[in-house]
Amino acid sequence: MKIAVLGTGTVGRTIAGRLSELGHTVTAGTRDPQATLARTEPDGMGNAPYAEWAAAHPAVTLASFAEAAAGAEVVVNATNGAASLDVLGLAGADNLAGKVLLDISNPLDFSQGMPPTLFVKDTDSLAEQIQRTFPDARVVKSLNTLNADLMVHPETLPESSSVFVSGDDAEAKRTVTGLLEEFGHTDVIDLGDITTARGVEMLLPVWLRLWGALGSPAFNFKIVR
Amino acid sequence: MKIAVLGTGTVGRTIAGRLSELGHTVTAGTRDPQATLARTEPDGMGNAPYAEWAAAHPAVTLASFAEAAAGAEVVVNATNGAASLDVLGLAGADNLAGKVLLDISNPLDFSQGMPPTLFVKDTDSLAEQIQRTFPDARVVKSLNTLNADLMVHPETLPESSSVFVSGDDAEAKRTVTGLLEEFGHTDVIDLGDITTARGVEMLLPVWLRLWGALGSPAFNFKIVR
Repeated sequence: MKIAVLGTGTVGRTIAGRLSELGHTVTAGTRDPQATLARTEPDGMGNAPYAEWAAAHPAVTLASFAEAAAGAEVVVNATNGAASLDVLGLAGADNLAGKVLLDISNPLDFSQGMPPTLFVKDTDSLAEQIQRTFPDARVVKSLNTLNADLMVHPETLPESSSVFVSGDDAEAKRTVTGLLEEFGHTDVIDLGDITTARGVEMLLPVWLRLWGALGSPAFNFKIVR
Repeated sequence: MKIAVLGTGTVGRTIAGRLSELGHTVTAGTRDPQATLARTEPDGMGNAPYAEWAAAHPAVTLASFAEAAAGAEVVVNATNGAASLDVLGLAGADNLAGKVLLDISNPLDFSQGMPPTLFVKDTDSLAEQIQRTFPDARVVKSLNTLNADLMVHPETLPESSSVFVSGDDAEAKRTVTGLLEEFGHTDVIDLGDITTARGVEMLLPVWLRLWGALGSPAFNFKIVR
């Protein structure tokens, strides 16, 4: 499939690289491709400059958010939650219309220090905000509940674990579930409509505390039943 | 140990019955013991009248919240979240002072319909409210993330799963962990101080959605790592 991955941070690179490796045609979307390619310093999260990563992943092309989305069948929101609505606005409502929009973002608010809080929760979710703002996109929330490496290589854990899909469009959820299975996920739980994204976004606080308690982000939730 | 279980609903009965079966001296706490024993109709949740349950569990005595707490080494808060601070007030700060207070409650708000929302979250938690209101109690949050039957019989699931403890008092967490192990839990994760209760209380929304998606509450989170 032709897939746009919006965001060139850890999650975006990990998803883009893996989708490309799996044979998909992947365009990474960024605000200003020339500026992204010109950077020579690690980003704020310590990621190597994008140009270095791009050299190791020549099949992944880089384009503006709008160009990336325009050419894609599936759009992945791999931006940080606080920027997601802005970035999707730059991608353009017309370029998102009718597309499957896999939303991986988390509504984390770091403004009050660590641990972050959530800027939307409980009675609403970031996924719902995105769906309301872009009513013609077919939003599916998934993969926001685990570390980037495990999103695309769940088999590195000692046993199978679970991921979730939330969305109003059954066919879009099937498309996303297919991609998750390509990544290696064997237990994809359909939670229901897009409002169920509240639940998975509210998993972040315990996820962050588990990271602290376990000393590693290499873990995932499994729903034993 | 001498244990008071405050609350005579599903969770209270399940915990009290199992602790008694394990050899502990258990007193169930209720607002008005005579009124509780006099009821002949099922309660709002469809539980059989308490007197019926009590007849099948003769070792569990019934007392007022205050009497139950006064005689206990460990106090279990098995009341519904909206009533917890009131009930613990009736139990009495003096009767809770120095005691291990295992808090199982969830801050569910049913006033806006289903699914319930949380009346405290993200920047605070019910467990923290309890700890602040009763600063001499040694509050440990645990067991609020799974069905009552599974709290005390986790071995009925096809594989091991995880439970969590949150609290400021390491010895109190060890006491609670010991009780959890008596129940059969083999993976008790210490998340850290009482503020980590925010994370486990915020698990409820996805727990409720999973119940809907799976059609059964007979599941639990396992942290695969």
